[in-house]
Amino acid sequence: MKMNNYIKLIDDKLDEYIQIEEPQNLFKSMKYTVTLPGKRLRPIMCMETCSMLGGDFEDAVPTACAIEIAHAMTLIHDDLPCMDNDDYRRGKPSNHKVFGEAIATLAGDALITFAPQIITKYSTNLSPITILRVLNEYFNYIGARGVIGGQVADIESEGNNNIQNKKEVLDYIHTHKTSDLFQLSIRTGAIIANASDEQLKLLTDFAKKLGIAFQIADDILDEISTFEKMGKTLGKDKQSGKLTYVSLYGLDESKCKLSCMLKECRDIMRTQNIKSEIFEQIILNIEKGAEI
Amino acid sequence: MKMNNYIKLIDDKLDEYIQIEEPQNLFKSMKYTVTLPGKRLRPIMCMETCSMLGGDFEDAVPTACAIEIAHAMTLIHDDLPCMDNDDYRRGKPSNHKVFGEAIATLAGDALITFAPQIITKYSTNLSPITILRVLNEYFNYIGARGVIGGQVADIESEGNNNIQNKKEVLDYIHTHKTSDLFQLSIRTGAIIANASDEQLKLLTDFAKKLGIAFQIADDILDEISTFEKMGKTLGKDKQSGKLTYVSLYGLDESKCKLSCMLKECRDIMRTQNIKSEIFEQIILNIEKGAEI
Repeated sequence: MKMNNYIKLIDDKLDEYIQIEEPQNLFKSMKYTVTLPGKRLRPIMCMETCSMLGGDFEDAVPTACAIEIAHAMTLIHDDLPCMDNDDYRRGKPSNHKVFGEAIATLAGDALITFAPQIITKYSTNLSPITILRVLNEYFNYIGARGVIGGQVADIESEGNNNIQNKKEVLDYIHTHKTSDLFQLSIRTGAIIANASDEQLKLLTDFAKKLGIAFQIADDILDEISTFEKMGKTLGKDKQSGKLTYVSLYGLDESKCKLSCMLKECRDIMRTQNIKSEIFEQIILNIEKGAEI
Repeated sequence: MKMNNYIKLIDDKLDEYIQIEEPQNLFKSMKYTVTLPGKRLRPIMCMETCSMLGGDFEDAVPTACAIEIAHAMTLIHDDLPCMDNDDYRRGKPSNHKVFGEAIATLAGDALITFAPQIITKYSTNLSPITILRVLNEYFNYIGARGVIGGQVADIESEGNNNIQNKKEVLDYIHTHKTSDLFQLSIRTGAIIANASDEQLKLLTDFAKKLGIAFQIADDILDEISTFEKMGKTLGKDKQSGKLTYVSLYGLDESKCKLSCMLKECRDIMRTQNIKSEIFEQIILNIEKGAEI
């Protein structure tokens, strides 16, 4: 599949899976952020991984959508006034600016259980054991040991000049806030394709590196891009004294580290004979996006 | 098992299941509200239902704990300033008063995925199919179609004098905000004991009625009890113009409705030959608590 076909498939399915039920305001709020146009990078990685390992990407569609929904959930809560306090997301007013803080908080909560419901309801070709494995991956990478743990470390780093081991903390934040969703996407795609333990281990390493590269690029973009290009308020990390690659290493060294990380991703693909135009394209887009 | 033995078991298991990992502040915040002393009504109902249907209540312990954890999660988010803005819970400062709003929000998020992890990790005697059934109950009753939907309707009713169908809205709020967790507890206990579809249907009806009775009693207590007895700020429902049984029907008619609802619960127990001292005790406690 081409990138655009994947995007269209995910957009259609997300629209189909989230119907507006009662209480309507809640479901509208849930659907609003999930269906804002996006790159759909995580679900695409899930389906593509399944496909490149010989599985049928259709089997991964519910899981892929669930991951995009969980990602949207993290955006809704990250944007709240008590967290990053962002008024815009993907070029539109953020969820709480449209629906209010209470509904936005509850919409996020609701999406956390709505996403795995999609996995159990629509994964009709998967065995109960595979579904349980996928759900365990979801709980693990979304929860306190995953994305949410990363967000906590991110918030606690803000304006804190007393952090001793800044490099380790930054690594922790990036691993969990960003790489964990990349790992979840790629690992579940692999599990659905019945990957071996060895394949899974290798792809987890690849996913971690790709996620960190993506986050370094994002930190760079927060410094050099514009609202028009990114659809969200920029320069906020700097303003709020957040620990980022650019604040810790400077712009030039960050670009260098990004370049290194992308090279490692390409090396893994080459040495392990991973053939995927989609992943090549994703790596290229991260590279071009950060203008390195 | 006696009520106090069940409570001790749950308290011990909750303490054991939630270990303080990194990021420590997040896990401390998660553990804080979950382990505040409480009646443990929901987990007890789960284990007792399993036991009275001939199952081993030990098999229901992880699910019972997961439900108590999910309940704690709803308390953390309900207490947030953007929701009910409550400073106290179970006689102690509420979660965000201790850990701040950002951590409290994220601790709630984390608990939503932490709870089902306990089910999948510790339910070693249950088949994958039973675990999936239990998880689906959890997703359904916790999510947008369950407790969270009820909280949205509750918030939207606040200070809104233009609601046309007040009785239906109140029924919706109580069914979802309170009864849904009662239904989840009793249904999962029954599923773990391999209950028949007919038993499940009957117990669902019983759970719904018991939950509504509990919430009517809670509305009455909000009017007539004291902070010392309840451990939370009272009279707030009235102040904020919330739709409650007392605000809609008055105190006397609410007591009458509660009495009726408890009679129906006892009738179900008698006609269906449900023998459980624990459920008799729960009904009695609701009755005595509201002083009817």
